[in-house]
Amino acid sequence: MAPSFLLTNGITLAIALAVVGLVFAFILIRQVVGSDAGNERMHVIASAIQQGAKAYLNRQIVSVSLIAVVILAAVWWLRGGLTAAGFVVGAVCSLAAGYIGMMIAVRANVRTAQAASVGSHPALKVAFNGGAVTGLLVVALGLLSVGVFYLIVRGTGAHAKHAIDSLVGLALGSSLISVFARLGGGIYTKAADVGADLVGKNEQNLNEDDPRNPATIADNVGDNVGDCAGMAADVFETYAVSLIGGVLVGHLTVGTEAAVVYPFVLCGLAIIASLIGIGWVNFIKQEATTSLVCGVAVSGIVASGLFWWATGSIFPEGLKIGEVAVSHANLFYCAVVGLVMTLLVVWITNYYTSTHYGPVRKIAKASETGHATNIIAGISIGNQATLLPVLAIAASIWYCYDLAGLYGIAIAVVSMLSLSGIVISLDAFGPITDNAGGIAVMSGLPEGVRKITDELDAVGNTMKAVTKGYAIASAGLAAMVLFGSYVEDLQAFVGHKVAFDLMDHKVVIGMFIGGLLPFLFTSFCMSAVGSAAGSVVMEVRRQITAKPGILNGTETPDYAQCVDIVTKAALGQMIVPALLPLIFVIGVSYLGMEALGGVLIGTIVTGLFVGISMTSAGGAWDNAKKYIEEGSHGGKGSFAHQAAVTGDTVGDPYKDTAGPAVNPMIKVVNILAILIIPIVFKAAAK
Amino acid sequence: MAPSFLLTNGITLAIALAVVGLVFAFILIRQVVGSDAGNERMHVIASAIQQGAKAYLNRQIVSVSLIAVVILAAVWWLRGGLTAAGFVVGAVCSLAAGYIGMMIAVRANVRTAQAASVGSHPALKVAFNGGAVTGLLVVALGLLSVGVFYLIVRGTGAHAKHAIDSLVGLALGSSLISVFARLGGGIYTKAADVGADLVGKNEQNLNEDDPRNPATIADNVGDNVGDCAGMAADVFETYAVSLIGGVLVGHLTVGTEAAVVYPFVLCGLAIIASLIGIGWVNFIKQEATTSLVCGVAVSGIVASGLFWWATGSIFPEGLKIGEVAVSHANLFYCAVVGLVMTLLVVWITNYYTSTHYGPVRKIAKASETGHATNIIAGISIGNQATLLPVLAIAASIWYCYDLAGLYGIAIAVVSMLSLSGIVISLDAFGPITDNAGGIAVMSGLPEGVRKITDELDAVGNTMKAVTKGYAIASAGLAAMVLFGSYVEDLQAFVGHKVAFDLMDHKVVIGMFIGGLLPFLFTSFCMSAVGSAAGSVVMEVRRQITAKPGILNGTETPDYAQCVDIVTKAALGQMIVPALLPLIFVIGVSYLGMEALGGVLIGTIVTGLFVGISMTSAGGAWDNAKKYIEEGSHGGKGSFAHQAAVTGDTVGDPYKDTAGPAVNPMIKVVNILAILIIPIVFKAAAK
Repeated sequence: MAPSFLLTNGITLAIALAVVGLVFAFILIRQVVGSDAGNERMHVIASAIQQGAKAYLNRQIVSVSLIAVVILAAVWWLRGGLTAAGFVVGAVCSLAAGYIGMMIAVRANVRTAQAASVGSHPALKVAFNGGAVTGLLVVALGLLSVGVFYLIVRGTGAHAKHAIDSLVGLALGSSLISVFARLGGGIYTKAADVGADLVGKNEQNLNEDDPRNPATIADNVGDNVGDCAGMAADVFETYAVSLIGGVLVGHLTVGTEAAVVYPFVLCGLAIIASLIGIGWVNFIKQEATTSLVCGVAVSGIVASGLFWWATGSIFPEGLKIGEVAVSHANLFYCAVVGLVMTLLVVWITNYYTSTHYGPVRKIAKASETGHATNIIAGISIGNQATLLPVLAIAASIWYCYDLAGLYGIAIAVVSMLSLSGIVISLDAFGPITDNAGGIAVMSGLPEGVRKITDELDAVGNTMKAVTKGYAIASAGLAAMVLFGSYVEDLQAFVGHKVAFDLMDHKVVIGMFIGGLLPFLFTSFCMSAVGSAAGSVVMEVRRQITAKPGILNGTETPDYAQCVDIVTKAALGQMIVPALLPLIFVIGVSYLGMEALGGVLIGTIVTGLFVGISMTSAGGAWDNAKKYIEEGSHGGKGSFAHQAAVTGDTVGDPYKDTAGPAVNPMIKVVNILAILIIPIVFKAAAK
Repeated sequence: MAPSFLLTNGITLAIALAVVGLVFAFILIRQVVGSDAGNERMHVIASAIQQGAKAYLNRQIVSVSLIAVVILAAVWWLRGGLTAAGFVVGAVCSLAAGYIGMMIAVRANVRTAQAASVGSHPALKVAFNGGAVTGLLVVALGLLSVGVFYLIVRGTGAHAKHAIDSLVGLALGSSLISVFARLGGGIYTKAADVGADLVGKNEQNLNEDDPRNPATIADNVGDNVGDCAGMAADVFETYAVSLIGGVLVGHLTVGTEAAVVYPFVLCGLAIIASLIGIGWVNFIKQEATTSLVCGVAVSGIVASGLFWWATGSIFPEGLKIGEVAVSHANLFYCAVVGLVMTLLVVWITNYYTSTHYGPVRKIAKASETGHATNIIAGISIGNQATLLPVLAIAASIWYCYDLAGLYGIAIAVVSMLSLSGIVISLDAFGPITDNAGGIAVMSGLPEGVRKITDELDAVGNTMKAVTKGYAIASAGLAAMVLFGSYVEDLQAFVGHKVAFDLMDHKVVIGMFIGGLLPFLFTSFCMSAVGSAAGSVVMEVRRQITAKPGILNGTETPDYAQCVDIVTKAALGQMIVPALLPLIFVIGVSYLGMEALGGVLIGTIVTGLFVGISMTSAGGAWDNAKKYIEEGSHGGKGSFAHQAAVTGDTVGDPYKDTAGPAVNPMIKVVNILAILIIPIVFKAAAK
């Protein structure tokens, strides 16, 4: 039988679909930018946010580039030009996805505020489409960069293994940038937010986004550089790394062209599914949450149909892994596991972070007895929230491994991440509506407009929490695939089987050291936010004392000063934690390949728990405060509300700095390990 | 060469030394009880605490017995009468160590308060000797029960393997009781403490131990049932389990009589060393902290000398593990590693929790900007505090494994735990001085007396934090030994090598599920304390509203009502988390022995981090508050102080409920796994 069209042209087709995604992203950009941008007052505020965000990101690029150049030189010297080129492509695309997405978000925010004066659905559309630009950019750039780079390298006549090796360079470039973007953006956004809240809400009784608070512009800038640019770089990385992991495992464990093409095709087809979902939100008029959830569901259904067709076409007779025959239905089931995992994780995170269910209400109730019981309840909920996602991950691994071995797990991950286009649209929707609310308040738009932006903001908060659960769960699975790649690649390199037995004390020592990494990393993150927020508090107190007119509105605060303080703090404090994974991996590699394998698994295990518990607790604290503000337990201004504000403030770095940054960190560890195999274990290969 | 006296009579000698320890414990009991018990007012308060503590412990025994009988029946039915007998011995001795120790502590407290009117050193002596009773009981009962039980079973003609198997039953009995004691006591003490503080300090501006606070007697009862009885059961368990682990590994990996006798001898000789240390504190008059630290140091030095002699005498020609010859010097070095680990962990924990160093001061400084930054700083410090202990544990494993394989690690653990006698004396000193301070305040003793009890209380706090670090680090190492025993025992049972490879998806799934356990377990603990403390707050508010005379001292609060509420809450809420490890181990065993092995290591890895970070953060929060109360950052009553009180309150269940309870929980998981091998893996053996 002749190979199907999809098998011979799969990667080209995927690239074409990525280009279609890019085209739609540009259409959405034109549409967003073409919307009404509101009045002069709104324009002034919005451009202050724009400039702050742009200035920060430019400075971040300079800082990161200096470090990236050193690492690039090391990669070039140790692993050759192709891998180095991959590193550059990954780093640049990761940066670009975040940068362009954010530049649209800071334009969509003011337009969402303006559209809210027309109605709820127009505002939803502008905000969602602004977010969809980021979503589409992430998947299109991800697929395009990996696909084109792979084809070019193959076109030079390089061996498939060689081409895939250089993809690992691409993965490292994107992971490294995303650790910096997540950390820098995360520290920025939460230092500004926490600092603004501590003085504004607790000391001066100002509302959120009150223009009298000198830190309020910095706070709004933070939403963009953290939740938008940082998150985009992060998911770009997870997407690219999952795809590369799928290709790598396909090559190492199956070894056929079909196994390498399949992940590309799944990603390409999912772009069609995402576009249909985006269309649904735009053209079917529904209540905001329903509309967004239906958009994702429609994408999932369309994707599963396309996946069924593609799997049959690429693997008409299934495939063979070693001696074991795997039917194409089995592979399809693995892909479905990825889609189901997406829905499951969304549902679980929603349960733990929505005001409608027990966990958030328990925290709200605990706030009645004070700050401390609120914190205790939140930590308890965060730890509890690890149960279901981890069991789901364990079940997925079990089931997919039974169906198609390590390749099956890889396909589930690729399938899970393939829907990033629509999922990230929801996430990036969050900072846009948050900013729209801020602009509405600061520019004194009428009550009705603010009601709409507030409602959309609440929806955005839930979506943000939910996509964080998605990101960390998928990262856990993706890291498992990378670990498998490390072992397979290592065995191929040294030419014999390497055991990673738990009775080998080196493996266990590696696991302890690896398990340490997420704890140490989050310690740095929390400490960075705490100290940077402390500086903001001092600055705001200084301004209020120096210019007493700020509080009665007769003097204008110096917003730029706060923006500058936070910028410097974020850039200064992101370096050490971002370099921790490099230090650990390279350090432990000298203890041997078994210890390094232990480090990888140790980091995945504790990282998954730390990541899930922190993002869940943070989301739950946030919404417990919202629940009280809606009137429960005494409502706004009550004793319970003060306690809930404390919980929300502690939750801020949990959910937006430390928790999500664990995600790219885990992967840097794993990718770096793969990359250094031929360098540090040369002796073992002889 | 004829076998040395020590080799042929080592276990008998150890038993004799345990009896010596018991005799000294009774001498100390007579001495403490014979001291002046103060005036009538002090007597009334002290007996209220005594009765509350006794009533709680009696009810706890009833609750736990009901569950223990069910488990006993299962053990008897599945593993036979010998193992069931071991279970009973372990459970009863664990209970007895806690019960007797606590009954002395509730008598030593009032006598310490009275002795403080004579001077600082007399008060130190009464409190320390009260604590030393618990310390000596723990080691003497531990060594006696394991030694006598082993000799009796051997005397019945049972095979060594059979005798050791039944020791595993003893380990399970003591572990299970200690999980309940740690949990029940931990929930009790912190629910009362947090509840008393939330209303007393935050709402009514009452001082600690103010007799107008209806929860103050419950708070003082809690110190005894948690920090004294709970901790004694916990360390009894760690001690007995380490000794049994050493014997088990000696039998499984070395197989000679010497290897089995050696751990007993180390434990016996360390009792002499501990007695000399206790004598030092009693007879050498020094400043309190110096005196206690010197006591431990003297014990350590004496122990290392005795260990050198014993090692040479038992292993004149070293030993053979498989084909590898191990010199007696190597074994001695392993024992020294255990002693050095004790000192290292004490030093590290002290660094992270003492007011003299950076970490605590950082939290104190962060309190200036509010409740939330205090919490953020504390969590950051807690996570950071895992770094050095985990690196020390990893280095110990590496070094001891190189010296003498798994047996070397086991010897290091036995040596580390052998000093429990003196270390626990320091720990149990804490609740006694805490209570003495409470009694001094409540009975209106003069300022000078309270100054002395306050100083001793501060010393006690540091000692408590330090011994918690010791307990969790030693538990981590002990659990590694138990995991090794599981694998060795499993392989002996199924008759072939079993691999626990990280590439086996079942192992990884097991690790995820095992890693989940500490998170879920601590979630329950935190939640239990939060909700029980909430009930106390409601009750105290109710009493103050119903009897307004309480606050101006004209009406007496109903202390018994608070004691009753906390008792019921603690007993009700300890059941589910205590049964979690049983449910997980038995559930996962159906996924196979590889998955179960993964569970064991997963629990050890995340449990170690969760345990260390929680106990360290809790201790640091506590002392950050003390540091501010000493006058820094605005002192008592300042904004920073309020924030620090919040941190201390969150830290309470961290350091006294959830964190330390992880320690016996890890071991229940591992022991249970060993015990069920012949039941659930019968099919694999055929």
